[in-house]
Amino acid sequence: MQLPPMRKGHGTQNDFLVVPDLDGELDLSPELVRALCDRHAGIGADGVLRVVRAEMVPELAPDAAGASYAMDYRNADGSTSEMCGNGIRVFMRYLQLVGLAGSEMTIATRGGLRWVHGDPDGDLTAEMGVPVMLDVRPVVSARPLAPVTGVALQVPNPHVVVSLGEPADLDALDLSRPPSVEPGLPSGQNVEFVVERAPRHLAMRVHERGVGETRSCGTGICAAVVARAVAHGAAADGATWRVDVPGGSCSVRWRTDGELELTGPAEMVAEVTAAPAWLAAIESDGRPVPGLTVR
Amino acid sequence: MQLPPMRKGHGTQNDFLVVPDLDGELDLSPELVRALCDRHAGIGADGVLRVVRAEMVPELAPDAAGASYAMDYRNADGSTSEMCGNGIRVFMRYLQLVGLAGSEMTIATRGGLRWVHGDPDGDLTAEMGVPVMLDVRPVVSARPLAPVTGVALQVPNPHVVVSLGEPADLDALDLSRPPSVEPGLPSGQNVEFVVERAPRHLAMRVHERGVGETRSCGTGICAAVVARAVAHGAAADGATWRVDVPGGSCSVRWRTDGELELTGPAEMVAEVTAAPAWLAAIESDGRPVPGLTVR
Repeated sequence: MQLPPMRKGHGTQNDFLVVPDLDGELDLSPELVRALCDRHAGIGADGVLRVVRAEMVPELAPDAAGASYAMDYRNADGSTSEMCGNGIRVFMRYLQLVGLAGSEMTIATRGGLRWVHGDPDGDLTAEMGVPVMLDVRPVVSARPLAPVTGVALQVPNPHVVVSLGEPADLDALDLSRPPSVEPGLPSGQNVEFVVERAPRHLAMRVHERGVGETRSCGTGICAAVVARAVAHGAAADGATWRVDVPGGSCSVRWRTDGELELTGPAEMVAEVTAAPAWLAAIESDGRPVPGLTVR
Repeated sequence: MQLPPMRKGHGTQNDFLVVPDLDGELDLSPELVRALCDRHAGIGADGVLRVVRAEMVPELAPDAAGASYAMDYRNADGSTSEMCGNGIRVFMRYLQLVGLAGSEMTIATRGGLRWVHGDPDGDLTAEMGVPVMLDVRPVVSARPLAPVTGVALQVPNPHVVVSLGEPADLDALDLSRPPSVEPGLPSGQNVEFVVERAPRHLAMRVHERGVGETRSCGTGICAAVVARAVAHGAAADGATWRVDVPGGSCSVRWRTDGELELTGPAEMVAEVTAAPAWLAAIESDGRPVPGLTVR
């Protein structure tokens, strides 16, 4: 197997390998995705974005009549996901960079069609769907804080948002292990901790389920804004919020039609070509990726 | 500034960006090294290996009359180091790959001349220097183990080696924070935890000073063998030991002349070309690399 030259890019330090495959010819096995994303034995990324013409992958994007390109998103563990709020901006930036997109485009994802817009040299905005509030108020415990009641919602993946009183509380949080959430949501949750820096200006840290603390989470940023807007009695009013995360800053607009829009940077860092001998070794033995245990 | 196409490679999952600069024309600032090594906002690696003709960098390798090439090693934080046992194999593999080396070569490093040998398609062996035992027996504490007395030595960087009784003890170790070492060595230490799997066959985990737990440490592997050999009353007898680490396996020979030889794999993963716009942005604003705090 050969892989075409890829690009590595990131949005608020959520980083991806973009693999162009316009004709849908590549078989990205979970083993290959894991090997590519391995930060020590491979190239390293939070995920892979395969770029394919939508008509070539009806199984990925059945309602793709309105889209030219489909985003085949894979997590670093080889699994698929419906959408990725930072990833879709990197995907769009790639299309702009190689001349396949101008300042707007509708992109097919496993989560449906998403409209993305923005100039090639500026921030990009992506539609993120309509949030759903959940009728549960879990209690979240994370050292060194006392337990706090959170807000649960889907964007569309499950989130629990916790508001803290002081910026110092955010800095002091130990997220090296998952926060305790009681009751937890049925399929787990990302947990966002937020403080207000100013009206409609939040600072946030996030613990992603199955991953740990990350430098950014696109749906988590949206969830934080929805939770705080609801707390202020200001739902879906079309106002713009700013959210600072460890990897940078994004802004969120909760449109009056209920749709969330996430705006943020997307930057291409490098062109990357996998070594043929390395690819051949992965194909022949699968290369299980060791963690920090001695085999 | 332009950077030539680089390679990303690893030795037992200690990974590096190899930057060819035969004529010594590149100014690799600490800011640029940090940006390149950043695993989310950059390309990602444990360090950078600049490849330069030895005669072009007399300040790096003053005694380089016997060497054609010098290894300019930079840590991910932008600082320099004398040597890197896994890095020098990746350096040699690069030279072999591009036709600048055959099956042996003497390489100039800040730590002096090092002889490296091995076929282009097999493991590589590098001289690692003569270890120096230290006259101190620090007590090491790491959860969940009871405090254990360790062996202190220099290879030439400072190490404390702790022998554990059971393989399960190695698996159970929590190295998410630095082990306590009393008394600590003057400039800190790497701490190696080892168990014997068979005669002259060790399993090891390592906590590197200033870094955390890593998947491999070349000098730490050598230190572990020296500490165990001395405990067996079998110093510098030319026998070969095997050491398993989370990132793979290496072997070590403590020659009768006192010199250590480390043998292990070195693999090239990809060719990487930094995006010009990304490089320009680093040059213009220095791009401080945020950690997991919100700016």
